[in-house]
Amino acid sequence: MKDDKSNRSALNIKAGISPPPSINPALFTARGRKKRKKYSVDEFVDGILSGEMAMLSQAITLTESALPQHYEVSQEIIEKCLHHSTGSVRIGITGVPGAGKSTFIETFGLRLAEQGRRLAVLAIDPSSTNTRGSILGDKTRMEKLSTHPSAFIRPSPAAGTLGGVARKTRETIILCEAAGFDTIIVETVGVGQSEIAARTMVDFFLLLMLAGSGDELQGIKRGIIEMADAIAITKADGANLLNAENARASFESALNLFPLPPSGWKPKVVTCSAHQNTGINELWKIIIDYVGFTRETGFFKDFRQKQAVVRMHDTIMEYLSNSFYSHEAVRSLEPTIEKQLFEGSITSYKAALKLIDNYFKK
Amino acid sequence: MKDDKSNRSALNIKAGISPPPSINPALFTARGRKKRKKYSVDEFVDGILSGEMAMLSQAITLTESALPQHYEVSQEIIEKCLHHSTGSVRIGITGVPGAGKSTFIETFGLRLAEQGRRLAVLAIDPSSTNTRGSILGDKTRMEKLSTHPSAFIRPSPAAGTLGGVARKTRETIILCEAAGFDTIIVETVGVGQSEIAARTMVDFFLLLMLAGSGDELQGIKRGIIEMADAIAITKADGANLLNAENARASFESALNLFPLPPSGWKPKVVTCSAHQNTGINELWKIIIDYVGFTRETGFFKDFRQKQAVVRMHDTIMEYLSNSFYSHEAVRSLEPTIEKQLFEGSITSYKAALKLIDNYFKK
Repeated sequence: MKDDKSNRSALNIKAGISPPPSINPALFTARGRKKRKKYSVDEFVDGILSGEMAMLSQAITLTESALPQHYEVSQEIIEKCLHHSTGSVRIGITGVPGAGKSTFIETFGLRLAEQGRRLAVLAIDPSSTNTRGSILGDKTRMEKLSTHPSAFIRPSPAAGTLGGVARKTRETIILCEAAGFDTIIVETVGVGQSEIAARTMVDFFLLLMLAGSGDELQGIKRGIIEMADAIAITKADGANLLNAENARASFESALNLFPLPPSGWKPKVVTCSAHQNTGINELWKIIIDYVGFTRETGFFKDFRQKQAVVRMHDTIMEYLSNSFYSHEAVRSLEPTIEKQLFEGSITSYKAALKLIDNYFKK
Repeated sequence: MKDDKSNRSALNIKAGISPPPSINPALFTARGRKKRKKYSVDEFVDGILSGEMAMLSQAITLTESALPQHYEVSQEIIEKCLHHSTGSVRIGITGVPGAGKSTFIETFGLRLAEQGRRLAVLAIDPSSTNTRGSILGDKTRMEKLSTHPSAFIRPSPAAGTLGGVARKTRETIILCEAAGFDTIIVETVGVGQSEIAARTMVDFFLLLMLAGSGDELQGIKRGIIEMADAIAITKADGANLLNAENARASFESALNLFPLPPSGWKPKVVTCSAHQNTGINELWKIIIDYVGFTRETGFFKDFRQKQAVVRMHDTIMEYLSNSFYSHEAVRSLEPTIEKQLFEGSITSYKAALKLIDNYFKK
């Protein structure tokens, strides 16, 4: 499987770390610091479980590393960090650029932090090939939240395949929960596959929309709206208030036409304003209601278990796919076969068989 | 890859054959007839290209056969039947049982036949394990259409995996187009994967809905509505007329909230009544408009080419998946691994790697 360049990891470590008061400054890793001390797996696990942010960050960096020895250590750490997700709630938040995601997450996150929740904000953004360009790469996006002692903001792992980014985000969730974060926010960009990946790792999926000129979903990939447990119309203030209220009503009646999702939960539509601090509490109450409702029905636990199985199968298929398409004999034949397909001189089925024959001939 | 039991093929041959006047009775294969004459590939191809229905039916049956020698012959036939799809339009029609699919297709198909179109109706129904239970197994469902000389109704290939059924349907489309059918209808049941498969083989996708008690989409899988190029509210007559008109308006405004699909075509919503013969012409006009629009933009051709590539990759992934999950070492380990996953004592990623190791160890 393709993986990220490990030399980007050093940058990742620094970005977004918000050490809570409990942190041991000696363990804190910063850019420009000399060679990092090497910890054992048990030291890592102990550090994470006692909430040391630097240990958490380093462990996450190990999962993002392309070096096999890093990878092995990280898997051992993750294995020992399982079973610490009790009581956590994992929230997926998506919306196109301009929908007000950063502002919303900052306001929403600060509110949760005030209420005593510990919040980790992660991102899946397969389009970022560099931390600096990532949707969470710019710390100033969430200035107040990123310095709050109860919040931890981690940028999207750089580059790599979507599958790689998604795997790392899943592993980061486990590590964050072991470090005591009870509220995980997974942020995505609203353009497709990354939302589907996010859906397999969160309990609740929130779509942020900006009420506008009538084409509210401009830029949002079709299909995402059906994944949402709630839609929040953002920037519902000032001159935009009426627009937002109209959009809310439209989405509410549109969602009435859809069948209930497998959870049995009827998706909610609300308006909110991060600037005026309206609708934020309501949204959190909806999430609490959702968790209560699905815990009651058993869906919450079932869904997490099913997610784990789905992820396993996804990982297998991704591995098989990479193994196939990176195979020399397949790669050399594929352009010819695709040309024949485009010309219509061969059926899709026969094209597939030719490539498969070449793969298994090895 | 799993395949159907070939002993079901004999039943399939008979069902739904509607010999046009051009047919040579000596070639017509019927149940209870003695051993069928064996034709060469070229005889098959010549027969199909001259529109002999019995030859078409037998060739389709060969694609559905589990016998390797049948399979090879069928692939040669299909290969030679490519390039005969000029001017054809492939329409996917879906809707839950009760939405009035059969009645609609009968009325719609007869109208097209009257206009000189030659119509083949195929089905994807992975749930049918027997032709008799298939959504198109019952010829009496479309009594008039099934005896019309310009129509050819073929039941869903029995049993097998969805991938198998889908592959056979694709190959049947090629054969039908070579036999001179210019309008292909692929019928599905509206419950999930089969619609996604159908979407990769049709130009236009029509969703039939019954206006009812407010939960119009009851039974329709979430996500299907976003695949539709048109939604038709059926049974819009008598006491149901107002309901249907309200449903049409609701869907129309709901679809306004969605971004345009990749075709750039804005999905249309209409009401129709098969009994009163209303809305049928309008729907055909919409399809004609769609074809004109997408031919103009180049999307029509691009999409067919992309579909071919998608199908090739789907076939490859299906093959790899079958090869993996039917592997003895994987099968024997999988229950243990899934148990560990459910207990949460192993990560999805490590679970996947264990199975992958076992697969490649062979």
